[in-house]
Amino acid sequence: MKALVYNSLNSVALQDRPLPSIASPSDAIIKVTKTTICGTDLHIKKGDVASCQPGTILGHEGVGVVHSAGSSVTRFKEGDRVLISCISSCASCEFCRKGMYSHCTSGGWILGNTIDGTQAESVRIPHADSSLYPIPSGADEASLVMLSDIFPTGLECGVLNGKVQPGGTVVVVGAGPVGLAAVVTAQMYSPSKIIVVDTDANRLQVAKDLGATHTVDSSTVDPVASVKTATDGKGCDSVIEAVGIPATFELCQQLLAPGGVLANVGVHGTKVDLHLQNLWDKNISITTRLVDTVTTPMLMKLVDSGKLQPSQLITHHFKFSEMEKAYQTFGKAAEHGALKVVIDLD
Amino acid sequence: MKALVYNSLNSVALQDRPLPSIASPSDAIIKVTKTTICGTDLHIKKGDVASCQPGTILGHEGVGVVHSAGSSVTRFKEGDRVLISCISSCASCEFCRKGMYSHCTSGGWILGNTIDGTQAESVRIPHADSSLYPIPSGADEASLVMLSDIFPTGLECGVLNGKVQPGGTVVVVGAGPVGLAAVVTAQMYSPSKIIVVDTDANRLQVAKDLGATHTVDSSTVDPVASVKTATDGKGCDSVIEAVGIPATFELCQQLLAPGGVLANVGVHGTKVDLHLQNLWDKNISITTRLVDTVTTPMLMKLVDSGKLQPSQLITHHFKFSEMEKAYQTFGKAAEHGALKVVIDLD
Amino acid sequence: MKALVYNSLNSVALQDRPLPSIASPSDAIIKVTKTTICGTDLHIKKGDVASCQPGTILGHEGVGVVHSAGSSVTRFKEGDRVLISCISSCASCEFCRKGMYSHCTSGGWILGNTIDGTQAESVRIPHADSSLYPIPSGADEASLVMLSDIFPTGLECGVLNGKVQPGGTVVVVGAGPVGLAAVVTAQMYSPSKIIVVDTDANRLQVAKDLGATHTVDSSTVDPVASVKTATDGKGCDSVIEAVGIPATFELCQQLLAPGGVLANVGVHGTKVDLHLQNLWDKNISITTRLVDTVTTPMLMKLVDSGKLQPSQLITHHFKFSEMEKAYQTFGKAAEHGALKVVIDLD
Amino acid sequence: MKALVYNSLNSVALQDRPLPSIASPSDAIIKVTKTTICGTDLHIKKGDVASCQPGTILGHEGVGVVHSAGSSVTRFKEGDRVLISCISSCASCEFCRKGMYSHCTSGGWILGNTIDGTQAESVRIPHADSSLYPIPSGADEASLVMLSDIFPTGLECGVLNGKVQPGGTVVVVGAGPVGLAAVVTAQMYSPSKIIVVDTDANRLQVAKDLGATHTVDSSTVDPVASVKTATDGKGCDSVIEAVGIPATFELCQQLLAPGGVLANVGVHGTKVDLHLQNLWDKNISITTRLVDTVTTPMLMKLVDSGKLQPSQLITHHFKFSEMEKAYQTFGKAAEHGALKVVIDLD
Repeated sequence: MKALVYNSLNSVALQDRPLPSIASPSDAIIKVTKTTICGTDLHIKKGDVASCQPGTILGHEGVGVVHSAGSSVTRFKEGDRVLISCISSCASCEFCRKGMYSHCTSGGWILGNTIDGTQAESVRIPHADSSLYPIPSGADEASLVMLSDIFPTGLECGVLNGKVQPGGTVVVVGAGPVGLAAVVTAQMYSPSKIIVVDTDANRLQVAKDLGATHTVDSSTVDPVASVKTATDGKGCDSVIEAVGIPATFELCQQLLAPGGVLANVGVHGTKVDLHLQNLWDKNISITTRLVDTVTTPMLMKLVDSGKLQPSQLITHHFKFSEMEKAYQTFGKAAEHGALKVVIDLD
Repeated sequence: MKALVYNSLNSVALQDRPLPSIASPSDAIIKVTKTTICGTDLHIKKGDVASCQPGTILGHEGVGVVHSAGSSVTRFKEGDRVLISCISSCASCEFCRKGMYSHCTSGGWILGNTIDGTQAESVRIPHADSSLYPIPSGADEASLVMLSDIFPTGLECGVLNGKVQPGGTVVVVGAGPVGLAAVVTAQMYSPSKIIVVDTDANRLQVAKDLGATHTVDSSTVDPVASVKTATDGKGCDSVIEAVGIPATFELCQQLLAPGGVLANVGVHGTKVDLHLQNLWDKNISITTRLVDTVTTPMLMKLVDSGKLQPSQLITHHFKFSEMEKAYQTFGKAAEHGALKVVIDLD
Repeated sequence: MKALVYNSLNSVALQDRPLPSIASPSDAIIKVTKTTICGTDLHIKKGDVASCQPGTILGHEGVGVVHSAGSSVTRFKEGDRVLISCISSCASCEFCRKGMYSHCTSGGWILGNTIDGTQAESVRIPHADSSLYPIPSGADEASLVMLSDIFPTGLECGVLNGKVQPGGTVVVVGAGPVGLAAVVTAQMYSPSKIIVVDTDANRLQVAKDLGATHTVDSSTVDPVASVKTATDGKGCDSVIEAVGIPATFELCQQLLAPGGVLANVGVHGTKVDLHLQNLWDKNISITTRLVDTVTTPMLMKLVDSGKLQPSQLITHHFKFSEMEKAYQTFGKAAEHGALKVVIDLD
Repeated sequence: MKALVYNSLNSVALQDRPLPSIASPSDAIIKVTKTTICGTDLHIKKGDVASCQPGTILGHEGVGVVHSAGSSVTRFKEGDRVLISCISSCASCEFCRKGMYSHCTSGGWILGNTIDGTQAESVRIPHADSSLYPIPSGADEASLVMLSDIFPTGLECGVLNGKVQPGGTVVVVGAGPVGLAAVVTAQMYSPSKIIVVDTDANRLQVAKDLGATHTVDSSTVDPVASVKTATDGKGCDSVIEAVGIPATFELCQQLLAPGGVLANVGVHGTKVDLHLQNLWDKNISITTRLVDTVTTPMLMKLVDSGKLQPSQLITHHFKFSEMEKAYQTFGKAAEHGALKVVIDLD
């Protein structure tokens, strides 16, 4: 089969690979019909993710059709259409029982990282019963690809960790795909204000179209002053960091209202300053999370009922043979106005 | 009347002051019968607390008897014995309604800070109906003085913020009075392990007597290795920082289990390093809180039923005329084996 | 002044009454600008509410302007526009501290019940600081009258008690004003389905216009079968009883999914059958609540931000001189297609 | 092998049966070392449990040693000592993901009910990875048998559903084994009062020994008056029904404080009266639950750390050959002062 392989530093390419096969009774083999590219895939390409070795097939998002299932798989059979979670979960270990699938002792984020991933014609999914979700007939599968990772990430790491609540105020710093997924899913909890801070005018416009009540271009105005003005001088109840660098984490601390939560979504490569001298008596929380995808079933219900349209974040479609071009487009997202790109294999 | 006044940098003294009087209909004047000294009083003396001006009567802890009550006070009358909360709460502002009395827009921590405090024969208490608590007849009032501040602080900022839960693992870094109050109140939630880290052998022994299951003398052993060993290599679910310096905050980050909470109790004067490069995917929380004293009624019930004995933390008693000596003793706590000192005015 | 008085069984009338005056330092006198009639007022008229004596001015909903405030009132002054809560709260008693304002030991539901109410040109409001809410300039005051009682009731007793959650399924039995307020406020939590059961085609149509995803006319179809069909045979996660008779409570028990909540909103006058033989192992909850109005500030923020339009429930406007006609119209609500009637005094 | 079989109405007997074998890749075969008898087993014997057909081996509690494990079992291997949960859980279905293992679509309470149970020399356990728990070496296995069912039941259905909290008041109606397990596990959450109501003086004494602060013999005193007296006239925050008949459910409604929870633990065979005319405005909840055993890992940690000693409830030990005598003793529990009887197979 064809697969997109991380070859070496800064190099990914479509290559021929053998079809995957069942390795454990709880595995399933999925024929991939749609996949996408994540910012993390670009990090791997740049050599930032030590756990991912050259030679690995990339990708941890996708939908597909069950080709075969191991002997202990009871919830799926050949021909079932399924959503693939970016997180593999055994469902039984100490962490999975707590809903921390990201820390599953025999799973977690392994797809396209420590084992071959979904940017391929077929993929082996461990712990299939608890890592795949059945797709209702007639569903918009491109929308569902957004539920493999970015929607649960925006929701769990941003909105739920950020305790977004009815009437509350929210600021999302960073309007990339995950930040925008937070903007969309925050509205599930009816905050009174959703402020988005970024430096890209196009992304700020998209944020507004997706429901942001205020946008702040931090390349032209002081974001602290702007957010304070929009919140009667208080700052925000929920501050969602969706960039992952010291400067934005620093900014987020200044945007917190007393009693607020700073929900970190960004992937950080270095330590940051924490201004405890200002925050120790402010009754605030700072949270981190690798997405657990525990909210995937709930998100699927909301997509099914029409309350969520994750496909709003899709800007480009490619054929699987254009995979390398898809990487180039997504790699220069600002230049191409790219948010999420979908690769169609069927 | 006599009162202990913060005179100037490094100087406190007993002085003559006029008796306080009702300034607002919701005030009450309390004849103080017992008070105590808090670490924060020492910080004021050292000039670390900018909000407290020279000339202020210190003290935010105490019990006493109502001398007079303003016209709108309905819950207290002359002669009632009362516990004084370190936090004054109007009960009606936005923050009070959320249980954040510490951020009350016309209260918060003002006693012995921005207004005269409890280290005096009499004290004026604003918002009396919601800042005083009736003392049941026959109660051990020395125990109750511990409920003005340190027990709610250990419980709210440490144990509740730290989400101590049945079967969980807890580490308390710092075995001063508040850290020990956290050790005692943590047991209300039945963790399986309570580890205490300090460098003072006496305080570690007290911690053990109060229910710690493990103690670690970080002056002689590596606390990270010790805590990991005691927790099957995982670290702790609840990490309580009860010191307030960068080194201990740094240590606490290393003691966190995945999914754990670092509950900061210490008062910090400088920024600290936050190792987001290690923590971003660990599903952890860091919390701060100025005590709200929302748990005071509940703590009083547990003292009343005999389930809590806060007087266990009292090491010294002084007469009010010995107030300056009390400051000297508490100021050299390690030397005197002092935890909490109680000053008896009756 | 003129006031609508409960005279005797089945008789209410506009009468002359003396203007109210400050009786306690925490009182405020409010010049009423808008009020409304509640189903409970009709119950009082019929003699169903023993606590309300003949001679009482009715009404527990309204907005107005502060005429005068007692000496301890700090949050309001003459001329302030205010929303009047149906529940008076001292903010300081054991129940108020828990958020159970409905059980305030010196308040609760007293307006238009045990003391004179809001269907008058002026009304005395006890515990003004914690029982009134400031109205932002430019607000739609007719909408805000809906926040005195029915919106908090639908939200607190129905939606919050019913644990409505994203992706969940909700059924509201009874499409009167409170049931419809539950339909509207349920959407703050993004359920996937909101089913409404009633026998009045007009109200079902209104429910649909307000966001119900399914309506069931129980006069023509079997509601149990209809709800099961709409929920894959499972029943609903949240079942909201908004009628208050044994037959509807019986129905609600049959509509519960395993793990669901039956949130009772209706006022019941007799005991009902509880089918524990069917429910003991179904992991369900049944909840009751007299509205606490703790959510009023949050609801005001959502009205202010345009996310809620409570005026959607207003079908009729009357002048205060037409108060008796307003009672007649609201008393025959089905005949007049009446939901909420607003009485304008200014 | 020998096994205790439900033969026919009122008849159970030790019989010869073939050894069980692996039927699905996720099964394990356990050599039983200790088991016990539950009140539910007596109900089956009396014909009250329609789902259990004659010919079934009874028993849903036990500890043992893994004899063999199916091909997909990864957490257990031959020779491992294990605790058997009374609830079998697939861990992956909609209900298991919510922690409602009792409603697992391919599990739940099936052992000794719809499939052969643990009162046998060997038993087949479906979904072994998520229905068995590893026993630490050196553990008191008799104590652990109490964790198969009654401790999780008392805790989950009584204490957790009843929202037992620090400083709260609790009444347990019914001092049988499960009621007593609630008395013990309630103390994990530090209530200020635990009142126990029963008619058996011996059981009331045991309750006191296990930590009840008050006991009420309802055969000699009015339990409503007694509980009101013990709670300043308020009733209890948490009312745990551990009998299962209309009279005790009626009593429990009268013992509820405003804002309280009535947690039903009893198995009910008929409908009961619910006095909504008294309760509709009291802000109470009524909960039901079939035990999910989600708390088993936590309880095991507390037993391991010495904070819980479930063996306190064991009054009798029998050999497996005396199984029928064990049924007779447990069947006349009051006469023999029996609480839990343990049957030792090794």
